[in-house]
Amino acid sequence: MNNTNGEYQTAVEIFNNLKNIFYIKEQIGRIKIDIGGITANYNNNDAIGELLQNWIGHWLVNENIYFRTRENTQEFPDFLLSQDNSRDFLELKTYNYSASPAFDIANFEAYCNSLIDKPYRIYSDYLILAYEMSNSRLRIKELWLKKVWQITSDSSKNPLKIQDKRGVAYNIRPCNWFSDRSKYNPFENKEDFIRALYGTMLQYDQCRNYRHEWRQKVYNHFSMS
Amino acid sequence: MNNTNGEYQTAVEIFNNLKNIFYIKEQIGRIKIDIGGITANYNNNDAIGELLQNWIGHWLVNENIYFRTRENTQEFPDFLLSQDNSRDFLELKTYNYSASPAFDIANFEAYCNSLIDKPYRIYSDYLILAYEMSNSRLRIKELWLKKVWQITSDSSKNPLKIQDKRGVAYNIRPCNWFSDRSKYNPFENKEDFIRALYGTMLQYDQCRNYRHEWRQKVYNHFSMS
Repeated sequence: MNNTNGEYQTAVEIFNNLKNIFYIKEQIGRIKIDIGGITANYNNNDAIGELLQNWIGHWLVNENIYFRTRENTQEFPDFLLSQDNSRDFLELKTYNYSASPAFDIANFEAYCNSLIDKPYRIYSDYLILAYEMSNSRLRIKELWLKKVWQITSDSSKNPLKIQDKRGVAYNIRPCNWFSDRSKYNPFENKEDFIRALYGTMLQYDQCRNYRHEWRQKVYNHFSMS
Repeated sequence: MNNTNGEYQTAVEIFNNLKNIFYIKEQIGRIKIDIGGITANYNNNDAIGELLQNWIGHWLVNENIYFRTRENTQEFPDFLLSQDNSRDFLELKTYNYSASPAFDIANFEAYCNSLIDKPYRIYSDYLILAYEMSNSRLRIKELWLKKVWQITSDSSKNPLKIQDKRGVAYNIRPCNWFSDRSKYNPFENKEDFIRALYGTMLQYDQCRNYRHEWRQKVYNHFSMS
């Protein structure tokens, strides 16, 4: 899905439009599946993230906003907001408002490795929608626009909160960035986030063969020492 | 979702109704998400299984067919077709018709363990829907009603085709039960499937502590030696 004839808007402009012009928090949503005239109103949570992704694309077209998506949906980012392939990256994340955010920010190793060749990935904007589904009515209860270091934190086990499956580092996971009562606060800046990536690589054998070189290259990209 | 005032139908009756009375293969489906009057027609695949699950429940209500679902959707089965908690189990599986079936039949260890206390699980019926999404039109291209041993087979790596993640047995996976050209044919009967479960347990350390006792109990349930 693309809208390459649309007008350029920054992630901040899109966010403001969605929040303060479209008033998404005041709108009611519905998800329906019809087969042969039998229509079911969806009232669960599992499909919402996937359908919101779809809806945002449709809304961008409707607002005549420029965007491109990747042919391969596994690649980052979800939306490219300009013709430049090294900036204006928008990632969409969704979660159930009544629970803690539990989406995957990215695969841990894939994210680390991408910073070697594509350090600009770190400036991607994350549009986060917290939804609530009740009586088949979907509401966007809150939304945020954040950088990766603003939604990640230290954790009890690793310098970066990640999903660990049987001793293997899998996905980068969000902290409760909006909570005043959270034990772990988001990082202050991208440098702290990058140090936490490296500190976590040190704790996993799976990164042993490349973490030294990774540190040199990535720290150099960002003029860190 | 439940319809405990509905009339009892067997899995076979439901399957015949869906196929030969409702003519599901000739119907066109649509999935829509609307927020604040902006409607997107869904044209991807990832959400279809979840929405078909929802739709089937709605269709059963519409047909006035008795069913119950579990409070905990992680538990088996997806649908109970009678008041009996040890029979009339219906599982729903879906996959993209243009690819090979790749759904998870069940978690390998959880399935094995459940046969100790609930050997009747083996008689569950699997309603399988193969769908195609094109230009936002959803079609059910084929459907089957099968027992677990009719959709599972030997494999090159294990006596039972499973998903192996880094040496850990995860999920039981389907074979190409409908293909004449497939190297591995489905099992002939439940006993061959059970022997393949055990043969696969022998290949994984994770099952070491309980497989001997498992074999005794489960083989005894089914009068196997």
